Amino acid sequence: MGMNGESLDVRSLLRAYRNGETTPAAIVAQVYERIERYADPAIWIYLAPLAETLARAKALQEQEPAGLPLYGIPFAVKDNIDWAGVPTTAACPEFAYVPARSATVVEKLCAAGAIPIGKTNLDQFATGLVGTRSPYGVCRNPFDPTYIPGGSSAGSGAAVAAGLVSFALGTDTAGSGRVPAAFTNIVGLKPTKGYLSTQGVVPAVRSLDCVSIFALTCADAARVLHVAGGFDPEDPFSRILSSVPVPEIQSLRIGVPDRADLDFFGNVDAEKNYQAALAQWVAMGGEIIEIDFKPFAQTARMLYEGSWVAERTAAVGQFLEQDHPSIDPVVQQIILGGNQMDAITVFQDFYRLMALKRQAEQQWAEIDILALPTTGTIYTLAEVQAEPFVLNRNLGLYTNFVNLLDLSAIAVPSGFQTNGLPTGITFMAPAWQDAFLCQLGGLFHAKLGGTVGATGIPLAAIEATNP
Amino acid sequence: MGMNGESLDVRSLLRAYRNGETTPAAIVAQVYERIERYADPAIWIYLAPLAETLARAKALQEQEPAGLPLYGIPFAVKDNIDWAGVPTTAACPEFAYVPARSATVVEKLCAAGAIPIGKTNLDQFATGLVGTRSPYGVCRNPFDPTYIPGGSSAGSGAAVAAGLVSFALGTDTAGSGRVPAAFTNIVGLKPTKGYLSTQGVVPAVRSLDCVSIFALTCADAARVLHVAGGFDPEDPFSRILSSVPVPEIQSLRIGVPDRADLDFFGNVDAEKNYQAALAQWVAMGGEIIEIDFKPFAQTARMLYEGSWVAERTAAVGQFLEQDHPSIDPVVQQIILGGNQMDAITVFQDFYRLMALKRQAEQQWAEIDILALPTTGTIYTLAEVQAEPFVLNRNLGLYTNFVNLLDLSAIAVPSGFQTNGLPTGITFMAPAWQDAFLCQLGGLFHAKLGGTVGATGIPLAAIEATNP
Repeated sequence: MGMNGESLDVRSLLRAYRNGETTPAAIVAQVYERIERYADPAIWIYLAPLAETLARAKALQEQEPAGLPLYGIPFAVKDNIDWAGVPTTAACPEFAYVPARSATVVEKLCAAGAIPIGKTNLDQFATGLVGTRSPYGVCRNPFDPTYIPGGSSAGSGAAVAAGLVSFALGTDTAGSGRVPAAFTNIVGLKPTKGYLSTQGVVPAVRSLDCVSIFALTCADAARVLHVAGGFDPEDPFSRILSSVPVPEIQSLRIGVPDRADLDFFGNVDAEKNYQAALAQWVAMGGEIIEIDFKPFAQTARMLYEGSWVAERTAAVGQFLEQDHPSIDPVVQQIILGGNQMDAITVFQDFYRLMALKRQAEQQWAEIDILALPTTGTIYTLAEVQAEPFVLNRNLGLYTNFVNLLDLSAIAVPSGFQTNGLPTGITFMAPAWQDAFLCQLGGLFHAKLGGTVGATGIPLAAIEATNP
Repeated sequence: MGMNGESLDVRSLLRAYRNGETTPAAIVAQVYERIERYADPAIWIYLAPLAETLARAKALQEQEPAGLPLYGIPFAVKDNIDWAGVPTTAACPEFAYVPARSATVVEKLCAAGAIPIGKTNLDQFATGLVGTRSPYGVCRNPFDPTYIPGGSSAGSGAAVAAGLVSFALGTDTAGSGRVPAAFTNIVGLKPTKGYLSTQGVVPAVRSLDCVSIFALTCADAARVLHVAGGFDPEDPFSRILSSVPVPEIQSLRIGVPDRADLDFFGNVDAEKNYQAALAQWVAMGGEIIEIDFKPFAQTARMLYEGSWVAERTAAVGQFLEQDHPSIDPVVQQIILGGNQMDAITVFQDFYRLMALKRQAEQQWAEIDILALPTTGTIYTLAEVQAEPFVLNRNLGLYTNFVNLLDLSAIAVPSGFQTNGLPTGITFMAPAWQDAFLCQLGGLFHAKLGGTVGATGIPLAAIEATNP
């Protein structure tokens, strides 16, 4: 029993429905009560009227649950993903439009019985890892309101961590689907590029954008992934799922940077938790292998220092050149940076990326997964306000290269700092290892134990009732 | 018996060596005699000294031929591909450098027993499909010296067609490995992007460049492909060979544009030969299926009208900004076009390509191969001189999209015009169908019959002695 009542994790909820203990309508009512009680309006850019959502739940109750893998599961949608008939703002009210169709992922989830509750706040145009760059305010970090919630999918992370919904959709180009997970003690799955359709998603860096999944457990993330993923002929970047050989968990080769390449920005607790996580893997039979982290770190820097910024400009540059009061000046400055870039440099950067990919592949030949801190540290709102660019960049050290190098990744809790704030670890693998990473993340999470998100509910209790 | 004596095709030569009828040294001597007799110095930018090549042949004779799949096979190398110790000019003497190492493909061929004879002429920096843009002169079209030889791999095509070497390496970004084949009655294989390493090749459009193979028969092209191909860790664009399902030849679905989308630029003979080729396929059990050619034609235009020009600029733009007397002004104008291009447009073009790819894929769902004229027509030297840009573009109508859409392709002879000039047909398939296309091309070529290249040697004679 958590501070908000029963766990809304997907498996517990499906079990409760199966056993006739509750109904989607009852859960919807409970969700709105929780949202009211939690009282953080900065999470929601749009909250569906209760009556509408209740009507949805009741319509669902007329259907046969057996064919609906997410029957009655409430979820939140990051507000750069279209939900038909509801404004998409990308956290900029002047940018808002009302899409006639939902994004493919939202369509798929609804068709599977999931119930959308609202649209969540984000760093404007999904540009940021801090969660503070929004005219809709800053969502509370549920562990300490003086700290940032992480971004850009700030509202989606906070909504899941606070136990307001079962899962939430985010997007993840630079790390937006992982950093908020680390800062709120939840799971953030960044699927393989092209696995989840980006049709109906406001582009950030269109060639790299991924829809991501926030959940309380890795098993939940895997279940949502399975429903939301799949080839979409309407998305030119969609890919057909490749089945790839899966490593042996019993003798997992875990790549880590050598100490000199690790940077926790002075955060001793974060470093301690990371080292403890690696020790846990050794106890589980894994082998820790030091790799050359330079190709990864060099790739990470290219995302904001290289030509890919021009993809952001291509997406919303024209809009940002207009004079709108809600435009975040930091976001504007970043995105308009692409206006100065030339075509030749794009290709030179592309060649450099290809060469770095080759170097990274050499590292992958020695390891099955990479295990990295999700972030080196966490910052307060005040710190980020004082240094908006540099601190944001620090947060991307272990995340920014992942889509450029076509990796799959899952961010999992790794414990707490002495100040009560959570830390995270991210497991990465080449493309299409998503399901394997969920399994692996689940094993690690179970060993870590503790409670899920900020719900106060022990993970062990969830696992015990949902074997 | 051809006009130059025995056929130098790979299988005939290997058979002759096996039977003790000749030796690599004897063949080398014969090759140099043929080159002298053929007397077209514009084919060769560099011809290795006879003594050196003879020494190579004799050293080879000390080895066991069994392990050398191209034992004693003389070949030519397009002069934008490195051969250690010999200048690489890319058809611009002021650009020349002497590489310490051979390109990976040259290394592989030599290691397999093939004997390099010389470096061949090309449209400068491989920019052109005409074969006339070179300070080293224009190679003769062996069928009529008033007509262009085709480019950019002009010398490689002419050397094979004239029976001076067994095969030749070209490169193919826009069609440079196919157009010269069509204009000289030989086979031009444009392998899947990344199958043959481009390490040691002067880039044209680096993300699209392919090393290509000219040969008298499809069987020869397949044999050279097998030796020259393979993953190269030193080439960031190299790819690991994927095995893909191969269509049934007995019920081949052959895509063709509808008549309205076909353009032979008024060349009635070329159209007749193309239609006869399709009729041949029907006689062989194939099914002709009209497809929507627009996505292919639209993609073709992007190669020179879109941002990919900036890759040419990235490759040699700085050199071309200097004042060198041998720079071809048409090539210079094209390549420097990338200086004016911006980064945002690159990504917008990239998105457009992704969408066109998706449209092309829908066509591929209905067909196994595409069968297209290699070119719609052929031009005289005088015509090209008068209209250097437009006529060159016309020649790329059926070739320019192939690498952008990641296809494999083989250009095969399709007969002759009444004026004695040859025409060609190209069979295309998705990536990694290279070996299948060689097989298919060989079946078609055998039905067409006639003589190979300009050698006067009947294909049937070669096939009969090399079953």
